[in-house]
Amino acid sequence: MPAVEGVRLAVYSAGIKYQGRPDILLAALDPGTTVAGSFTRSSTASAPVAWCRKRVPRGRVRALLVNSGNANAFTGQQGVQVVRWAAGAVAQRLACRPSDVLIASTGVIGEPLPIERIHAALPKLVDRLGRDGWSDAARAITTTDTFSKGVSRVCQIAGQKVTLSGIAKGSGMIAPDMATMLVFVFTDARISADILQSLHNAAVGQSFNCITVDSDTSTSDSVVLSATGKAMNQRPSKASDPILKDFRKALLSLYVDLATQVVKDGEGASKFITVDVSGASSRTAARAVGLAIANSPLVKTAMAGEDANWGRIVMAVGKSGARVDQSLLTVSIGGVMIAQAGERIESFLESDVEQHLKGTDIQIAVDLGLGRGRARVWTCDLTHEYIRINAEYRS
Amino acid sequence: MPAVEGVRLAVYSAGIKYQGRPDILLAALDPGTTVAGSFTRSSTASAPVAWCRKRVPRGRVRALLVNSGNANAFTGQQGVQVVRWAAGAVAQRLACRPSDVLIASTGVIGEPLPIERIHAALPKLVDRLGRDGWSDAARAITTTDTFSKGVSRVCQIAGQKVTLSGIAKGSGMIAPDMATMLVFVFTDARISADILQSLHNAAVGQSFNCITVDSDTSTSDSVVLSATGKAMNQRPSKASDPILKDFRKALLSLYVDLATQVVKDGEGASKFITVDVSGASSRTAARAVGLAIANSPLVKTAMAGEDANWGRIVMAVGKSGARVDQSLLTVSIGGVMIAQAGERIESFLESDVEQHLKGTDIQIAVDLGLGRGRARVWTCDLTHEYIRINAEYRS
Repeated sequence: MPAVEGVRLAVYSAGIKYQGRPDILLAALDPGTTVAGSFTRSSTASAPVAWCRKRVPRGRVRALLVNSGNANAFTGQQGVQVVRWAAGAVAQRLACRPSDVLIASTGVIGEPLPIERIHAALPKLVDRLGRDGWSDAARAITTTDTFSKGVSRVCQIAGQKVTLSGIAKGSGMIAPDMATMLVFVFTDARISADILQSLHNAAVGQSFNCITVDSDTSTSDSVVLSATGKAMNQRPSKASDPILKDFRKALLSLYVDLATQVVKDGEGASKFITVDVSGASSRTAARAVGLAIANSPLVKTAMAGEDANWGRIVMAVGKSGARVDQSLLTVSIGGVMIAQAGERIESFLESDVEQHLKGTDIQIAVDLGLGRGRARVWTCDLTHEYIRINAEYRS
Repeated sequence: MPAVEGVRLAVYSAGIKYQGRPDILLAALDPGTTVAGSFTRSSTASAPVAWCRKRVPRGRVRALLVNSGNANAFTGQQGVQVVRWAAGAVAQRLACRPSDVLIASTGVIGEPLPIERIHAALPKLVDRLGRDGWSDAARAITTTDTFSKGVSRVCQIAGQKVTLSGIAKGSGMIAPDMATMLVFVFTDARISADILQSLHNAAVGQSFNCITVDSDTSTSDSVVLSATGKAMNQRPSKASDPILKDFRKALLSLYVDLATQVVKDGEGASKFITVDVSGASSRTAARAVGLAIANSPLVKTAMAGEDANWGRIVMAVGKSGARVDQSLLTVSIGGVMIAQAGERIESFLESDVEQHLKGTDIQIAVDLGLGRGRARVWTCDLTHEYIRINAEYRS
């Protein structure tokens, strides 16, 4: 991944929970960096999320401090104080304000975050700050992830080359309600904070808010987009400014790439499932149907078993709460039409989709025949491995 | 189970899907029988559900015809015709109106119900009708169930002895949104249909609507309560009539018994979990919190793994959508207080709940500290066996 002008990174193995691997990331951002973000809608959000929810709307950021292994969630006043102390300590070393430091933590809920480990790590992190190290950064923020997630895009704003690079962690406790994991994206684009937030919101709605692994929403979900302005591109006047066309596309593409990487690494996932819903009465209705299918344990286990049990897709459509007229419903798997107008197509043979279901990239499509609402949702199958990981592992 | 005056039963092995076991049940009810019921809120409800939704509000019933092995759901006009034909055929043999015949089907979705098997079964069923055979009846309606479910209660209405007997099937695709399985309850009480429906609704709200196995709502859910009137008890004047006190209690107790039997037989269940929520801002909020915990795959796998991972309970409370102030939240497992006022109790040791989690009857309690709203919800754990059943079995 290419460096992003104005962004310096460092990682350290602090041993908060994991041993012998980096578990803290410090990202230092040059003065003038703007910021946008989304956070979990959980009412038991972690102390770092509570901190960031208040700071991001100010639109400025100078540092991100992220740890894995402990979520600092449901840790009471002590947890709040740890965040305040950490922001202050980073600010002092980077000569900025504590309110310009964002904090994120991921890992076990309800256990005190060992402040002394972070205290010991900080001087090392500041010493090591450098333009490279994206793969270490991506690794430092992982928990049950089986691979590190990072991606870059290059685009143009009014003829000026702009770089975007992002990293993500996420594997279980993934359900879309605002952001759904830890994601940090950096760009050297020069974009004001309010425009950045608009661009961010639009892209999140079609990426991180359209994935689910297990329908469980984390206490720690955070997606933060920082723009250092070092590309010195022409300043866009608003989010819909035509000069942002390429950037908007690149941002959405990068968000979708990271979001689908999270699903592909879904706990125990053996198949990546794309659910396309069309013909809904609205986009909201289409998304509700897509998520009902994507969250259904019975659909997900059928996919794990490579079983064309499409009746379970019909069941999930029925429980979605969206407006449905089953006599107009069309269902297909892997491009093969199975049911139309409320019943199975007579000529349909299960063997027609067998080959598709044996693959690792499954396509489910549902058309409601009611309107023009469309949505695409991504999920994974539900396997023995999900049970093994979550019945045996204290995440 | 004791006979209920005015109710005659018969079963037959029609081989609709299962071989060598009864798969059709006919219940014949004497003239004057009143009826109440609840049906799935699914918008892809089965043809039998669509039929019953229209007939039950008329308040009269003379027969129930139930088959297992095929849900007659998403079967288009053909499915509708099968139901109409079956009701007509039963009515002719029992000398009643087709609209007084209720139909229920459970099994695979989307495959045509073989009408010829029912046609062949009907004369046999009518010949065999008798006062006994409750355990055969309970068995005939099962699918993935590992045991048949039936229970009776005896109570009094104004000094007159009244009997209630009910059977249920249900194991997977269990989530509370109206009724959540097939349940047929019969009583010899004399109660008008509108009062019966009120009593039924109140009891369903605290029983069948408070259970979940896998958050998936069936296309076929039906709970039907029939009252033959043969007990000749004093007629109650309204649902709140004091003479119904004992009957209300017996009905709720019977519904809760059948509902918890369904959860105990949840697909792959190794533990029965009771979630008590108190201190919510309303009863609705309490139920939302209880169901968020009961439906969380991460809570359910932790219980399967006998892991006191209570942070996942906090996560589920946070995603419930109910009003929550985490600084007031109390969590306990097996009667042992783990967290209070937004953080873990310092003296809490996981070994304190280890013994409890090794048992098969798990108690989770959450107090929100906000108001007087309470709810109790039942679920089971999520195990390898659930995956095995649903990835390998075409239910």
